[in-house]
Amino acid sequence: MSKSEVIPADIKRLDAEDPLAEKRAEFYLPPSVVYLDGNSLGPMPIAARARARSVVEREWADDLITSWNVNRWIELPTIVGDKIGRLIGADSGKVICGDSTSVNLFKVLAAALSLQPKRFKVLSQRGNFPTDLYMVQGLAALLGESRCQLLTASADDLLDQLDESIAVLLLTQVDFRTGKIHDIRKITELAHEKGIVVIWDLAHSAGVIPLWLDDWQVDFAVGCGYKFLNGGPGAPAFLYVAKRHQGACQQPLSGWMGHRQPFEFSDDYHAHASVKQFLCGTPGVLGMSVLDAALSVFEGVQIQALRKKSLALIQLCRHLVSERPALSELQLLTPEEPEQSGSQLAYAHSEAYAICQALIARGVIADFRAPNILRLGFSPLFLRFEDIYLSVLALDEIVAERQYLSPRFQARQAVT
Amino acid sequence: MSKSEVIPADIKRLDAEDPLAEKRAEFYLPPSVVYLDGNSLGPMPIAARARARSVVEREWADDLITSWNVNRWIELPTIVGDKIGRLIGADSGKVICGDSTSVNLFKVLAAALSLQPKRFKVLSQRGNFPTDLYMVQGLAALLGESRCQLLTASADDLLDQLDESIAVLLLTQVDFRTGKIHDIRKITELAHEKGIVVIWDLAHSAGVIPLWLDDWQVDFAVGCGYKFLNGGPGAPAFLYVAKRHQGACQQPLSGWMGHRQPFEFSDDYHAHASVKQFLCGTPGVLGMSVLDAALSVFEGVQIQALRKKSLALIQLCRHLVSERPALSELQLLTPEEPEQSGSQLAYAHSEAYAICQALIARGVIADFRAPNILRLGFSPLFLRFEDIYLSVLALDEIVAERQYLSPRFQARQAVT
Repeated sequence: MSKSEVIPADIKRLDAEDPLAEKRAEFYLPPSVVYLDGNSLGPMPIAARARARSVVEREWADDLITSWNVNRWIELPTIVGDKIGRLIGADSGKVICGDSTSVNLFKVLAAALSLQPKRFKVLSQRGNFPTDLYMVQGLAALLGESRCQLLTASADDLLDQLDESIAVLLLTQVDFRTGKIHDIRKITELAHEKGIVVIWDLAHSAGVIPLWLDDWQVDFAVGCGYKFLNGGPGAPAFLYVAKRHQGACQQPLSGWMGHRQPFEFSDDYHAHASVKQFLCGTPGVLGMSVLDAALSVFEGVQIQALRKKSLALIQLCRHLVSERPALSELQLLTPEEPEQSGSQLAYAHSEAYAICQALIARGVIADFRAPNILRLGFSPLFLRFEDIYLSVLALDEIVAERQYLSPRFQARQAVT
Repeated sequence: MSKSEVIPADIKRLDAEDPLAEKRAEFYLPPSVVYLDGNSLGPMPIAARARARSVVEREWADDLITSWNVNRWIELPTIVGDKIGRLIGADSGKVICGDSTSVNLFKVLAAALSLQPKRFKVLSQRGNFPTDLYMVQGLAALLGESRCQLLTASADDLLDQLDESIAVLLLTQVDFRTGKIHDIRKITELAHEKGIVVIWDLAHSAGVIPLWLDDWQVDFAVGCGYKFLNGGPGAPAFLYVAKRHQGACQQPLSGWMGHRQPFEFSDDYHAHASVKQFLCGTPGVLGMSVLDAALSVFEGVQIQALRKKSLALIQLCRHLVSERPALSELQLLTPEEPEQSGSQLAYAHSEAYAICQALIARGVIADFRAPNILRLGFSPLFLRFEDIYLSVLALDEIVAERQYLSPRFQARQAVT
């Protein structure tokens, strides 16, 4: 990304007036890169680098096994869980950190079904992030269709399907392709009226959209540590369990860390009466420590302020794209109304893959989602308005000049 | 640990003649510490420190999302799996790395039961490591006793219980308390004669006991990355699946990484036909990279040589303990015959907890297992014979002088 382009004064003013502008200094960002993929893998907070060194080179190397006590490793799942809780409107004791989003989905799915002895249908959305559907399919294959059955509906038809035959509603708030969001408060309320237990996947929500899970009476939620929470590649995930369900539901991944007295080493499992009943094996201390440090960038920040900046970044991007005739080839998939979308824009184009590669070659890191989506993520903690300006300039040149037709941008990579 | 004690010439000679002596330099070990807890958390290999820095500070920080391709993050579960495979007698394509031992136990338990449509009993050992029993209990609670039922027997009675009613035999090779080992080859063969599918937990075996899982026709195995594999706190675990079962069994944690085409983002799960069907969510890249580097200390080492040194360390320890009258208070729980034990010694003593604390205060890090076990682990890659000598001297003083009665050694910590 060359900075030789002159940034217009009105763009410069947006950055000068940005109350979050100072947060950018808390991240390491490679020179000459505009990173529009913080929704897929957040960049490295400076504090995370320091913590990675200290957990490896001091806590592990010097303190060895004693770290479970002296460095409080044993408390990490709840310490980090509570920090995430503050970002999603959850009081202490509702959230734990650990495992992957997929594994956590399995736990909360089984737990939700355990609260519904007379129902067995799990309703989700067609085109939901695949792992959400796959985990229901895995549980259904294990339990049989008489105990767990996946139904899917389009976003438009979902609410019509909410009736007393549904046990569990499993939705992702932000559509990973289009960015369209669901109204958690409203849908949870409608589902509860029919006696349905609701699970929200907050993969693209946590850290960027104001959420009030306790107030909204959400039953269960899961989410990801490596997207807008910037916890590092494959960072541990999190899960939320409403207080009223803790101890009242059962989850089958009953590993020793979820036991009431894990260090008594008894032969019989007795679940912890708190959210700790959702712990399973030994926590991944390295990844969880790094996530813990990464969360420090949220200190002193209101999620509402993040949301406001996200929407301003998105609005600027859409405006700049709409001004450029060549970019009319791109079809906006994200809802027109800014409040209806998460912190991303999705454009369809038959050459989206190659356009994305051409952007990356120019230092604008976006991502591609099959079959034809160019996805731009807007992380308000570190992006500047000038980054958006420069990205649209690059995109305009790539599309106007058909640069994406170059064979080097057409060649497919393993992970796309 | 003071080194002012004079090391006897015969002990010095053992170290001088140790063909593995040079391996110690590949680890960082804190000064003045003798680390007899490598069976609980292995110490830091130097290569792991370097890799932790590079995965955080270069791969994540600079290469960001492109690392999935350029730094081969996407291949880590099979790259690391294959490296572990070489330590347990498994050809390429049998082992994957990921999740925790507990989560992996759930996968292989369900998979083993999926191969046994007419049987439902899971036989394990009373006093097995708790999470092994708890994961069966979790699956049984989910499926109901008509589809999964846990039976336990004492080590002595186990083989008598092997009959055609048993679906799955789940055993840990090395007893975490006593160190007593099972003969995997023999028991697997006996179980197979009765049509029983066998799962071995190799938590205290991998990296220290010669294993030939392929040759022994083992069905499934799981194990731990942070003990004798030195992968760091909460390192990802591994699992082994015999070729004949891959694609033929079902496992319910069917996350997107186990899909045949994860990046097609289709709504329907189709399991990968290889061991990858046991992958679930996004791998924990930081922890797995560190484990990958840690495994480099095994390069050029024969597991048989490690076993030989382990047994020599154990033999020396037992001999030195038996020579000291005060230490007759300690009751050896580990089998007399060295070949019958893993790489640890267990001594029972009513004050084992305080004795362990007193040892730690003197720089000899051992561990305590409830209710009354002092456990000493012998990691042959970095321990010297003189370490054993100095440890027994310290133990002798602590016991002979009743130092463990001090209140500072009696006070309990959170993790014991």
